[in-house]
Amino acid sequence: MLPRGRPRALGAAALLLLLLLLGFLLFGGDLGCERRKRGGRAGAPGCFPGPLMPRVPPDGRLRRAAALDGDPGAGPGDHNRSDCGPPPPRPSKCELLHVAIVCAGHNSSRDVITLVKSMLFYRKNPLHLHLVTDAVARNILEMLFHTWMVPAVRVSFYNADELKSQVSWIPNKHYSGLYGLMKLVLPSALPAELAHVIVLDTDVTFASDISELWALFAHFSDTQAIGLVENQSDWYLGNLWKNHRPWPALGRGFNTGVILLRLDRLRQAGWEQMWRLTARRELLTLPATSLADQDIFNAVIKEHPGLVQPLPCVWNVQLSDHTLAERCYSAASDLKVIHWNSPKKLQVKNKHVEFFRNFYLTFLEYDGNLLRRELFGCPSQPPPGAEQLQQALAQLDEEDPCFEFRQQQLTVHRVHVTFLPHEPPPPRPHDVTLVAQLSMDRLQMLEALCRHWPGPMSLALYLTDAEAQQFLRFIEASPVLAARQDVAYHVVYREGPLYPVNQLRNVALAQALTPYVFLSDIDFLPAYSLYDYLRASIEQLGLGSQRKAALVVPAFETLHYRFSFPHSKVELLALLDVGALYTFRYHEWPRGHAPTDYARWREAQAPYRVQWAADYEPYVVVPRDCPRYDPRFVGFGWNKVAHIVELDAQEYELLVLPEAFTIHLPHAPSLDISRFRSSPTYRDCLQALKDEFHQDLSRHHGAAALKYLPALQQPQSPARD
Amino acid sequence: MLPRGRPRALGAAALLLLLLLLGFLLFGGDLGCERRKRGGRAGAPGCFPGPLMPRVPPDGRLRRAAALDGDPGAGPGDHNRSDCGPPPPRPSKCELLHVAIVCAGHNSSRDVITLVKSMLFYRKNPLHLHLVTDAVARNILEMLFHTWMVPAVRVSFYNADELKSQVSWIPNKHYSGLYGLMKLVLPSALPAELAHVIVLDTDVTFASDISELWALFAHFSDTQAIGLVENQSDWYLGNLWKNHRPWPALGRGFNTGVILLRLDRLRQAGWEQMWRLTARRELLTLPATSLADQDIFNAVIKEHPGLVQPLPCVWNVQLSDHTLAERCYSAASDLKVIHWNSPKKLQVKNKHVEFFRNFYLTFLEYDGNLLRRELFGCPSQPPPGAEQLQQALAQLDEEDPCFEFRQQQLTVHRVHVTFLPHEPPPPRPHDVTLVAQLSMDRLQMLEALCRHWPGPMSLALYLTDAEAQQFLRFIEASPVLAARQDVAYHVVYREGPLYPVNQLRNVALAQALTPYVFLSDIDFLPAYSLYDYLRASIEQLGLGSQRKAALVVPAFETLHYRFSFPHSKVELLALLDVGALYTFRYHEWPRGHAPTDYARWREAQAPYRVQWAADYEPYVVVPRDCPRYDPRFVGFGWNKVAHIVELDAQEYELLVLPEAFTIHLPHAPSLDISRFRSSPTYRDCLQALKDEFHQDLSRHHGAAALKYLPALQQPQSPARD
Repeated sequence: MLPRGRPRALGAAALLLLLLLLGFLLFGGDLGCERRKRGGRAGAPGCFPGPLMPRVPPDGRLRRAAALDGDPGAGPGDHNRSDCGPPPPRPSKCELLHVAIVCAGHNSSRDVITLVKSMLFYRKNPLHLHLVTDAVARNILEMLFHTWMVPAVRVSFYNADELKSQVSWIPNKHYSGLYGLMKLVLPSALPAELAHVIVLDTDVTFASDISELWALFAHFSDTQAIGLVENQSDWYLGNLWKNHRPWPALGRGFNTGVILLRLDRLRQAGWEQMWRLTARRELLTLPATSLADQDIFNAVIKEHPGLVQPLPCVWNVQLSDHTLAERCYSAASDLKVIHWNSPKKLQVKNKHVEFFRNFYLTFLEYDGNLLRRELFGCPSQPPPGAEQLQQALAQLDEEDPCFEFRQQQLTVHRVHVTFLPHEPPPPRPHDVTLVAQLSMDRLQMLEALCRHWPGPMSLALYLTDAEAQQFLRFIEASPVLAARQDVAYHVVYREGPLYPVNQLRNVALAQALTPYVFLSDIDFLPAYSLYDYLRASIEQLGLGSQRKAALVVPAFETLHYRFSFPHSKVELLALLDVGALYTFRYHEWPRGHAPTDYARWREAQAPYRVQWAADYEPYVVVPRDCPRYDPRFVGFGWNKVAHIVELDAQEYELLVLPEAFTIHLPHAPSLDISRFRSSPTYRDCLQALKDEFHQDLSRHHGAAALKYLPALQQPQSPARD
Repeated sequence: MLPRGRPRALGAAALLLLLLLLGFLLFGGDLGCERRKRGGRAGAPGCFPGPLMPRVPPDGRLRRAAALDGDPGAGPGDHNRSDCGPPPPRPSKCELLHVAIVCAGHNSSRDVITLVKSMLFYRKNPLHLHLVTDAVARNILEMLFHTWMVPAVRVSFYNADELKSQVSWIPNKHYSGLYGLMKLVLPSALPAELAHVIVLDTDVTFASDISELWALFAHFSDTQAIGLVENQSDWYLGNLWKNHRPWPALGRGFNTGVILLRLDRLRQAGWEQMWRLTARRELLTLPATSLADQDIFNAVIKEHPGLVQPLPCVWNVQLSDHTLAERCYSAASDLKVIHWNSPKKLQVKNKHVEFFRNFYLTFLEYDGNLLRRELFGCPSQPPPGAEQLQQALAQLDEEDPCFEFRQQQLTVHRVHVTFLPHEPPPPRPHDVTLVAQLSMDRLQMLEALCRHWPGPMSLALYLTDAEAQQFLRFIEASPVLAARQDVAYHVVYREGPLYPVNQLRNVALAQALTPYVFLSDIDFLPAYSLYDYLRASIEQLGLGSQRKAALVVPAFETLHYRFSFPHSKVELLALLDVGALYTFRYHEWPRGHAPTDYARWREAQAPYRVQWAADYEPYVVVPRDCPRYDPRFVGFGWNKVAHIVELDAQEYELLVLPEAFTIHLPHAPSLDISRFRSSPTYRDCLQALKDEFHQDLSRHHGAAALKYLPALQQPQSPARD
């Protein structure tokens, strides 16, 4: 405390001192970078970028970036290793962060999901994903996000095909093809009001909260518009081999796997003209881009170095071939983003690849359902349908003995359609898709099924995220399966204790692309000729257009798990006569197929009509727009029976085909059927479902539904599966 | 810069001002808490604990803690919400952090592993775990950590039984029993040179890097010795119900699920006497502790408030019943540690329990293999055996067609023995344990197996971490299985593409606790009488002590997956005669069991000796110390055959038991056998393994091994499984 009345000069000098000191504290010296903590921009020279950061000096040449040669963290955003002390301010708690990703095709769609899982795992902010997709990726990702229902995640789609013409004139040799180049047109493709966006390649994995990356926007100077990490390879230095002529870049150049874009500034700066001009000029002497958009970004930056804000290397640890990334991460205790930017991806050679692979596998195999976590204290619009779902779940009575059934019925499963590359079948008026569902324990059926059914298939697989990866490896290891592009595999992610059999069937059915479907089960192998025979029959019978009918494929079974499959009806009948085959469930549940009338089938030369009867559950061929399965039937029992009831109620004729057959192979009883057999509660709950089913049937079909009442009231035998 | 030669008074006044200003900047005001950032202790009042932190005023009463009433982060360690800005300094990059956990019994051992997985996921420092365990937990955890081989994790065990007497005098009503109280004696039980330790309950889950918690030690004043988070319930306020008389505590008291202990200071302060004195005095008026150690910690703290350093609430978010934790986490974007401190654990009622449960499930189901990640740049002694393993793996040739086999043989699988509660069988001289191995797809065999074999079993299960949880639920849901305490389940965690069948058998064999073992396979159901009959036979034949023999149990098979199991040899022979049963692999591979001589067995009244022959692979009963299975045989083929060769080479007599039998049930072919059948490379690799096996056999048995050469040189039929 200054005593009063001292000379003014003293006060003035003290004030000067104070200001000097404040200046020292705020803008320089060891205690410095105070403003960074407060959210201000780093306008003062000497504070930011720090002395160890790659920075762009006035002459426009990049100094050898210290990030690769020593201290990886000595830059903005790293608060562990930096002498500067405090981290940059995180975005405010509920600030919406924007992320743009270009994604095309089946395989990239799988990659994007892994990236998104890693991002969601660490994020603490609402996110808006801007996905630039082709039709395939959009179909997959729209369904995925719709069924994922992650709180505080919004997704917008942009049509990549509409952007193609803007980049297709650029000759490009990079494996990402045309789509890699689309990052260049984001400033015009994304909404005009969007000012900041983080742009990510599909092959990056987050190891930290994306808000820390977003916070680096605060360090942009007033003219900087692009935040990038330096390349961690010597590619742009040239001379890697004879005649290696990379595109121009500052020093090692920058990697575009992770980009902070100030869209507003780029638009203002005339980005559209800027990159086109540069690209056209370079293409006068260079034949094509080697690294897609990255070559062009680097060429533009070399011309306009003031645009770029270099980011700390930990935000894009590049596992390319011959990477120098080790210089970055070996000194860092914090890795933020890992970039698999070798065409070899996880197979890249690198002495620490095992470490990075383990990290990647964490998210590849991570149960995405667990990411349906709310953000506490951030009011956000719930995903479509989520509120009703929450209400319905909240109304369930946990003491209800059928609680598990009710809960399972309400469960919205994440669905990843066409998990593997798939060629839609060419449009053919009588084509038939085999529709079935399975879980991991039936994978070994797929090869045989492919041999028996040469036509299109739509299969729903009930898997965990980890199992989906096993499934992928299984397909890749099988030449028979890998060769089939006409089999669409739709992964429905597991959740809950009961097998959602009819929900699975409906997913597979909805994805069938031919006018007709053969509704089968995975334990059945159809006659080798069935595919051709069904198409011929559909045409002959005028199914669909002239005739509302379901074609019945008679079902048989073998009890031996090695047997030689009959090549004709004659052979089948011979096996039946010697007891090597039986009609399906002949011993345990003959009612299920009795109306097919096997005796008549033996002799039949032409399709014949049969009448519905209680418990009838034949395998049928119907038009694709047939009624859906009733999703209330979860676990085992009555799932197919209810569907046939619905077909009959809607007056489908039931026509048995005289040359068609399918054979059930034996397997050990599933866990679910074991539960059904051993638990009276399980059977009681099934009865309750049947009662409710009949109420709904009456509502829809009125008095006609009375016909089904006796069938619904008889108890189900516990011996079936 | 002050001009030279000015009057001294001016300089002195300016200096004063400067000091005042510095004081303002460092210790108070809006910019404050600078020292915290630099790692200094928070000695200056007004800065730390912050105005919103629970703090202990001189009168010894806890002020209503703001942590529960508003801002959860406004304390040390939280750098997002705090006005103070920077986080405390993290421990230096490679500093070793010490963690102590008390753990007893099978269920707590599973809990500890989940806790450790969450800790390892986020950690960036070497860790030393100090585990105070009973014999059961030690047996489990020693094997687990030994096989887990996590780099930069050291584990020390302390015998809980030796500490019991120090706490057993305290009457205690808490569900943690005596073991909860043991946290009180850690200052004396842990090594004298250990000064700092973080003490954790087994029911906490980390959501952040433990080094951030460790960093809070730096905030202890010179006399503080215990860091704790305030209780997030009103328990200690009393009057929750009539006659609710909690132990004394400051305000809401503190929760001891997460403790920072300065062991050195506690030892100096005479902690041993201190807590005993307090406990004895309180127990004069209170009948027992209700919350174990926590009651005593709180009573001591109430008397010595200077000991405690309150920690921010996010470091122990307590999901007890009627928790007030929401006041903490609803404002926090960062949760650090979640504490499931309700006896109901994951079933606790809480409107956000779904969120927390998802978080917990992340680590419960996390593939622990992925945590075998090195810490970059921290030189640490590799786990025992890891270096040799690395070298052996590095020497493998990736181009070798049998690379997968070589790699699988070298894989060290994490092993969790006695995954579920298990009662060792009482010592009985002729007792036999059934030994087998299985994976998820054979779980449905377990109930039937339990009905057929009333004796002890040792089963190895090859599972992922997520499957292990499904397995747990499967057992809990089955009254038959849940009732059996004499079945030991040992989980071997999956890694690699080939089924390590013999490694699994060896794990199950090593854990068998009876003098004899029946080496079976999971697809076989033994005769109902077999357990009794084997024990009688062992006694009669003087197996082991007088006679080195392997008792052969003849094997049969059914091809029907529903059949009625014979209750006697007479019934079995009748089924055999009508073709409902066959001798095992009668159609595909009769050589495997031909030497058993089924014709002789039909008539036999007494055990008879048979001779070894090529490909013989009977199911046998042997003393527990029999030769181990050869772990080089992975995938399918030759795994049992090699074991019988070894028994014969070691001159075990082969004695067929006339009343014993076991029956194989049908199942779909496994994925592994499908690979074996379809891949010539697979069969070539098996031949290479056989050659190497014979070389080893010759080394051990000399010329006697020549006998087996022809058997080893004939190709294996691809039809077997």
